Amino acid sequence: MTAPFSVSDRPTVRLKPKANARAVRHGFPWVYANELVTDRRTKKLTPGTLAMLEDDARQPLGLVSVNPNSKIIARMLDRDPAAELNAAWFEARLSRALRLREQLYDAPFYRLVHAEADGLPGVVIDRFGDACVLQPNAAWAEAHLNVLATALAKVTGVTTILKNASGRTRGLEGLDDVNTVLHGTAPKAPVQVPMNGATYMADLTGGQKTGLFFDQRENHAFAARLVHPGAKVLDVFSHVGGFGLAMLAGGAGAALSVDGSTAALSLAEQGAEASSMGDRFTARKGDAFDVLTALADEGQSFDVVICDPPAFAPSKQALDAGLRAYERVARLAAPLVRDGGYLGLCSCSHAADLGKFRAASARGIGRAGRSAQLLHTGYAGPDHPQLPQLAESGYLKAVFFRL
Amino acid sequence: MTAPFSVSDRPTVRLKPKANARAVRHGFPWVYANELVTDRRTKKLTPGTLAMLEDDARQPLGLVSVNPNSKIIARMLDRDPAAELNAAWFEARLSRALRLREQLYDAPFYRLVHAEADGLPGVVIDRFGDACVLQPNAAWAEAHLNVLATALAKVTGVTTILKNASGRTRGLEGLDDVNTVLHGTAPKAPVQVPMNGATYMADLTGGQKTGLFFDQRENHAFAARLVHPGAKVLDVFSHVGGFGLAMLAGGAGAALSVDGSTAALSLAEQGAEASSMGDRFTARKGDAFDVLTALADEGQSFDVVICDPPAFAPSKQALDAGLRAYERVARLAAPLVRDGGYLGLCSCSHAADLGKFRAASARGIGRAGRSAQLLHTGYAGPDHPQLPQLAESGYLKAVFFRL
Repeated sequence: MTAPFSVSDRPTVRLKPKANARAVRHGFPWVYANELVTDRRTKKLTPGTLAMLEDDARQPLGLVSVNPNSKIIARMLDRDPAAELNAAWFEARLSRALRLREQLYDAPFYRLVHAEADGLPGVVIDRFGDACVLQPNAAWAEAHLNVLATALAKVTGVTTILKNASGRTRGLEGLDDVNTVLHGTAPKAPVQVPMNGATYMADLTGGQKTGLFFDQRENHAFAARLVHPGAKVLDVFSHVGGFGLAMLAGGAGAALSVDGSTAALSLAEQGAEASSMGDRFTARKGDAFDVLTALADEGQSFDVVICDPPAFAPSKQALDAGLRAYERVARLAAPLVRDGGYLGLCSCSHAADLGKFRAASARGIGRAGRSAQLLHTGYAGPDHPQLPQLAESGYLKAVFFRL
Repeated sequence: MTAPFSVSDRPTVRLKPKANARAVRHGFPWVYANELVTDRRTKKLTPGTLAMLEDDARQPLGLVSVNPNSKIIARMLDRDPAAELNAAWFEARLSRALRLREQLYDAPFYRLVHAEADGLPGVVIDRFGDACVLQPNAAWAEAHLNVLATALAKVTGVTTILKNASGRTRGLEGLDDVNTVLHGTAPKAPVQVPMNGATYMADLTGGQKTGLFFDQRENHAFAARLVHPGAKVLDVFSHVGGFGLAMLAGGAGAALSVDGSTAALSLAEQGAEASSMGDRFTARKGDAFDVLTALADEGQSFDVVICDPPAFAPSKQALDAGLRAYERVARLAAPLVRDGGYLGLCSCSHAADLGKFRAASARGIGRAGRSAQLLHTGYAGPDHPQLPQLAESGYLKAVFFRL
C-alpha cells in the first residue's frame, strides 16, 4: 500500500468563495493559486499530491493534483473525487486517446496524449511506431510513472517507452531532468517516420523535444500543395526537414533546408535519402537571418519559401521583441519569393496571438515592397487537441501567403 | 469611345489630412467616407465612377472606383492611376487568379475570383467546369461587364458565363437584381461537381448564391476524416449535401441530411445517386431546431454530427441573438453524438469572431452535459484568399469537437 495514493488518506483543498467554481464544474481544468484556500497544511503539500477539491460550500468538485509552488495550484484529474489512479484508470484514458489517433491516421506515428485535453494533465506522449516517448511534465504523473508506462505498453503494444525529462515545467514541479528508458531498449539509430509521403528521421534520444514535431503535419501537407512539378523551395529553420521533405514528396524539384543545427540537418539529409529524394535536397548550415540575407545577395529566388522559427515571443515580456523578429523574418524572406510564389510563416509563440503574428508578417512583407494574398491559416494538427476552455492558448499558427 | 472610361476624363478624389494614406499605400484597399474630401462634385459621381485617388498633398495613390452612397466610398483598382481597364488588364488579373486555383485543384471547380484579394473589388466568380457564374457586386464591374466576361471566356476557355445579380450589396451600388446569360447558354440541368470524392449537383440558375458553396471544401474533407467504415452521420442545414456526401465518400454507412429547402435536399439526393451512394443517403425536410429535438426524442445517436447554419449574426446588432442561436444549435446537437463521437459546428457570420463563436459552441455543449476536446479549426478554403489587411473579416469558421 502506497499511502499517498490511497483514497481515504487524501487531503482536501477548498476553493475560495470568489473562485469560479462554475467554470471548474463546466470543465475548466485548472485552479489558480489565488482561488484556493492555501492554509499552512496546503502550502506544505508535496508537489503532485492528489487531493479532493471542494467548492466554498464544501461540495466536492473532483480529484486534483496540487502543486503549492505553481500559479496553477491544482489540476483536475477526475470528476469523481474518489477515483483511484490505478491501471484501469490509465488504460481507459490511453484507450480513448488512442481511438482518436487511430481514426485520424493510417500509421502509428502521432502525438498520442496531449496533456489536459486528453485527460492526463501535464503528460505528453509521442508515438513512433513501436516506440513511445513519454514526457511526465507534472509531479503527479512522475509519481505514477510505472503504472502509466505499464498501461501505455498494454494499450498500444509498443515495445519501447522512453522517458524524456527535458520539459521546462518539470523544474517548477520539483522534478529532475534525467532521461531514462522505462520499457524495452532505447533505439540506437534514428527511427523512420512516414508522414505526408516522405520519410523523416527522428532521433528519440538525442534530438530536440521528442525528436520530431508532429504538430506541423497538416501545415507541411498544405505547403506540399503549393509546389508545382520541379519547383524550387526553401525551408528555413528546417529542423529535421519538416517542410522541405514534404514539399519534395509533393513534387518539388529542389529543396534547400537551412538550420543552425548540424545534427538536425544531418537527420534531414538522411530523411531525404530514405525518401529517395537525396538528389533533390541540399542543406545549408547557418544563422537563418544571415542565410536569408546571403540568398538575397546571391540573387536567388524560390517558388515557395517557408520559415518556421523557434518561439520568438515565449512570454508576454518578450512579445514586442518577438513580433519585431517575426516581421524581420517576413521582410527578409519575401524578396526570395518569385512573383506569384508562396510564403509560409509559422509561429509557435504562446504570447503572439494569430492577429498580432499575422499583422507582423504582413508588415514585413509590405516593408519588403511586396503585396500578398492570405491563402490559409493552419494550427497544430488534430492529434494536439485542446480543451475548449483553454483554446485561446493554441500556440502554433501558420499563415500562408501568395506574393 | 466611352467617355467615362477614358483616362484623361477621370475625376480626381482626395484624402483628408486625417486619412491613413500610409495604409492605402501599403495595400489597404478601401477608403471610408469620412476619410475622403466629399465636395459637391464628388457627391454627384455616379456609383462606380473611376477616379484618380490622391493623398492630401496631391500625390497620386492609384485608380479607384467611387460610390458616394457607400460607407466604403472608394475601392482601389490599380496602383497605377493611369491604368486602363481594358481587355489586357482584365486578362492579367484573371490569369493570375487562375494560376492559383490550377495550382491548388486537380479539376476546374473552384472560386476563381474572390473580390478584393484577387484584385477585382466586389467581383466574385465561381467556376463549374465549362461554366462560370459571375457576381458583379460593384458598379464599376457592372459598367465593365462585357470586357470582363470576354476576358473570362478567353482566359479560362469556359463556354458559358452566367451573371448572378442576387448579391446583397448590388442594391447599395444602384444595381438591379436581374440574372442574365453573358456567354453561351444556361445549362438546363444541374451541373455535376466532383469534390472530396463525391459528386455534387449545382443548380447554377435557380440555387442559393452561385449554386454551391466552395468555401466549405476543406472542412468537408476534415469531416470525412472523422468517419469510420459504416459510421452513422448527421448533416444539419445540409443545403445540397456538402458535409453528408463528403462523409459518405469517406466511408460512412449512413448519412441523414436535414434542410428546410426541398430543392436543396433534392439536389443532395441527386448528388448521392450520382455518387453511387444513394442507398446510404436519407433526406429529412424540416426546421433544423425541430428536427434536432425530434431526433433526440427518437433516441437517435450518430458517430458524427455537423451543423452548418445560415449566418445567425450577420451584423453587430444581431450578434447577441446570433450567439444564442449558435449555442442552441450546439446544445441540441451534442446529445445526438455518441460518446467518443464528433461534432462539427460552423458559422458564416461576419460579426461573430472565432473566439465568440467557439465559446458559444462550447457553452452549448456544456449545457447539454457533455465535455469536449477541440480538434480542429477550419476556415474558407484557399480559393477564397483574403487581403492580409482585411483578414479580420474572415467570415467562415468551422470548429470540430470530440465529445
